[in-house]
Amino acid sequence: MSHKGLDYETLNENVKKVQYAVRGELYLRASELQKEGKKIIFTNVGNPHALGQKPLTFPRQVVALCQAPFLLDDPNVGLVFPADAIARAKHYLSLTTGGLGAYSDSRGLPGIRKEVAEFIERRDGYPSDPELIFLTDGASKGVMQILNTIIRGEKDGILVPVPQYPLYSAAISLFGGSLVPYYLEETANWGLDVNNLHSSVAEARSKGITVRAMVIINPGNPTGQCLSEANLKEILNFCNQENLVLLGDEVYQQNIYQDERPFISARKVLLDMGPPISKELQLVSFHTVSKGYWGECGQRGGYFEMTNIPPQTVDEIYKVASISLSPNVPGQIFLGVMVNPPKPGDISYLQFMRESKGILESLRRRAQIMTDGFNSCRNVVCNFTEGAMYSFPQIRLPPKAIEAAKKLGKVADVFYCLKLLEATGISTVPGSGFGQKEGVFHLRTTILPAEEDMPAIMESFKKFNDEFMEQYEDHRGYSRIREGETSRVSC
Amino acid sequence: MSHKGLDYETLNENVKKVQYAVRGELYLRASELQKEGKKIIFTNVGNPHALGQKPLTFPRQVVALCQAPFLLDDPNVGLVFPADAIARAKHYLSLTTGGLGAYSDSRGLPGIRKEVAEFIERRDGYPSDPELIFLTDGASKGVMQILNTIIRGEKDGILVPVPQYPLYSAAISLFGGSLVPYYLEETANWGLDVNNLHSSVAEARSKGITVRAMVIINPGNPTGQCLSEANLKEILNFCNQENLVLLGDEVYQQNIYQDERPFISARKVLLDMGPPISKELQLVSFHTVSKGYWGECGQRGGYFEMTNIPPQTVDEIYKVASISLSPNVPGQIFLGVMVNPPKPGDISYLQFMRESKGILESLRRRAQIMTDGFNSCRNVVCNFTEGAMYSFPQIRLPPKAIEAAKKLGKVADVFYCLKLLEATGISTVPGSGFGQKEGVFHLRTTILPAEEDMPAIMESFKKFNDEFMEQYEDHRGYSRIREGETSRVSC
Repeated sequence: MSHKGLDYETLNENVKKVQYAVRGELYLRASELQKEGKKIIFTNVGNPHALGQKPLTFPRQVVALCQAPFLLDDPNVGLVFPADAIARAKHYLSLTTGGLGAYSDSRGLPGIRKEVAEFIERRDGYPSDPELIFLTDGASKGVMQILNTIIRGEKDGILVPVPQYPLYSAAISLFGGSLVPYYLEETANWGLDVNNLHSSVAEARSKGITVRAMVIINPGNPTGQCLSEANLKEILNFCNQENLVLLGDEVYQQNIYQDERPFISARKVLLDMGPPISKELQLVSFHTVSKGYWGECGQRGGYFEMTNIPPQTVDEIYKVASISLSPNVPGQIFLGVMVNPPKPGDISYLQFMRESKGILESLRRRAQIMTDGFNSCRNVVCNFTEGAMYSFPQIRLPPKAIEAAKKLGKVADVFYCLKLLEATGISTVPGSGFGQKEGVFHLRTTILPAEEDMPAIMESFKKFNDEFMEQYEDHRGYSRIREGETSRVSC
Repeated sequence: MSHKGLDYETLNENVKKVQYAVRGELYLRASELQKEGKKIIFTNVGNPHALGQKPLTFPRQVVALCQAPFLLDDPNVGLVFPADAIARAKHYLSLTTGGLGAYSDSRGLPGIRKEVAEFIERRDGYPSDPELIFLTDGASKGVMQILNTIIRGEKDGILVPVPQYPLYSAAISLFGGSLVPYYLEETANWGLDVNNLHSSVAEARSKGITVRAMVIINPGNPTGQCLSEANLKEILNFCNQENLVLLGDEVYQQNIYQDERPFISARKVLLDMGPPISKELQLVSFHTVSKGYWGECGQRGGYFEMTNIPPQTVDEIYKVASISLSPNVPGQIFLGVMVNPPKPGDISYLQFMRESKGILESLRRRAQIMTDGFNSCRNVVCNFTEGAMYSFPQIRLPPKAIEAAKKLGKVADVFYCLKLLEATGISTVPGSGFGQKEGVFHLRTTILPAEEDMPAIMESFKKFNDEFMEQYEDHRGYSRIREGETSRVSC
């Protein structure tokens, strides 16, 4: 009997090849356990509000008013909304034709793209063209659209850092291209060595692959490092020599937890370098309302900005964006407020500053608590989270644990993370989901659990980990494995 | 010199092949004219709020409160929001983990998928499984995901009605498949003749194409017809015989303007037919908050429901949905309210009914005004808009007009629509954007301009059209072409 169109056997092979660990086996098991009544701490995905982070008040007031424009004429509106939120809502509604319920232009509302351009100009010191800024339903959708535009088939390669955020590997699989890995150096605090790039490209070429673009994630996900200006210059020169498009995933640009290496955009470094490279190198940069101190993940707001992309290509990207008509308009308003927050003197300024500083300062402390906590555990080493929202400790798994995992048909870090989940409710993502060097194991956790819960979580982790190591380490004749204590956890 | 990754010459050929007329040449020219200060009536896209339709109050109140949860504790909230909207906002917030700012499950919030399933059960009389309902950023995103799952390459064909909504042709191009057209019969009120399906499939097969799925748009876009139960049965039997997945684009199910053929879902007809077909035929149905009397296009809310899709395939679709993390959460709330509107006795019930009936009844009158208007024009014939939001008149262009268009390198209906735009500001989409039989010309316009503006718009159309026909018709020696009156319009 022949198969039907949606039988598994006949599906698009690229769909089947996709792997997406952030919501993979661990997440599915955690969801099951949650249904069964177990308390789960979801640290598998950077989703701050899900872990109790409160939304910033001002942007929510503005968007609520845009959703309820009839309130703007209500004599009582001033009792529940401040005047600057009311004014801002009127401003954004004036940028639409028909309010939040109307499709915008497929690139997003022109007025908000103008505000994004002004934000970029203030940040980088160079003007930005709103016509080269497209608003998107979160940064991921933008990344996917650009990769889909570039990738023609399996002989097209995209340089991606390893470890990497699996959006890249998943999208490259979906579009039928080849991921060309370059390894970040864990011992150099996850630094990017340009020599690795050269050898990655050479190896890809020897397989007949044309490398067409390079991804950087700065600050790093899952690795948390911040790229220095000197490093960015090397990367830009490398891309220029090799004729690569640079895709700059800069969604964590507001999440910086040290002072030595503040965020600097790839675009600023490029334009600082001057011609010819500043006029030639093709760069697409991504940003979002989901990260920073906003964490408005569920709103799906984002943008990408194109530098040195030919007009004919911009037209093609516009055309494809048109198929799904427009990014969601409330997400565009959030983006507008993000790039144009309350100013000194505004009624809401002090509250906005208090809320946003409070979140950032707490994240900085949590990054430290987590790094210290991991480094206090047996067989665990962890670089400090300089930026972004993740901790990515290396777990030195004993051979017996690797063996035990193998028997269950599991990758060793999946085995470890599943046991961690069952024992503690902490839902992490195994390092293999991000790519790692052969024989080296990690896990990724967000630094997002509430600060007051953090010590207990780290204690619970340490207890599990140290017992796990106790159980699986070779004690050279000195065996005190306490089977009783761990037999309740199983995969 | 070798090309860069985002040079036009090296882009993904499938991207370049995409055509999307709804926002094509006509839309771009209209946007230019608008910038120059001309008053444009955008009837190119079904975007009701952009043409002045007011949003329904109750859903906007609920979503505004969900965006501003701090209001729920405000003693003054009752002064500006009714109690049932407050209660509903609390209900939806309780279905989230962290409010609208948190990613939901990639399939959407379980609680809202449950409400969608209940809606489907009430509508069809058969229970629906929330696990087989995925929420999406508007219906288009869902259609694209399902097509991407099915299409493996250019030898995979998708049966699509012609004229069709260009989402289908664009997405099939983007995913590298083949569109297999079946023609709707204009003289039979855009009816679907199953004999045409058989011959379309046979012709595709002779070219080595495997037809894997069939699209129906019911009510029709751009053609406005409603499929009868008998016709749907024939279609389902045909898909079953040919092993095709049926994709049911039912986004206009609330937009019905006659009483002979009320909307009936493909799923209800399928389940009424009983086994074996009801257990075998693979069906995916799409719905949205963008149409109906809601018209909340900018919110990007939608869902698809799967019937008889194997669990392994559902898992694959879930996995790919996970790459972009979650559909926007405010759009999910709108969908929740859409499938679960205020009930008799609720505080907001009467207002909600008054608003929604007002919109629907006005649309019904506008459908009639437009059909009558077009049929009063020289060389224009138009079927009545039974459902959906469009009028799709046939324009019988004289040979001289076709010749004049050719000289400018334009398709004749593009030529006509551009002249219409320049003369009247009415922005339509040429029929060639939807596909049509050789030598036959149409245009699509929405029925959405405000009812009070409709007579003037139709008068302005008639004046333009009749003068155009006057200019280009062959008068067999009797020439009274008034060049002076039309020379100001040019392409």
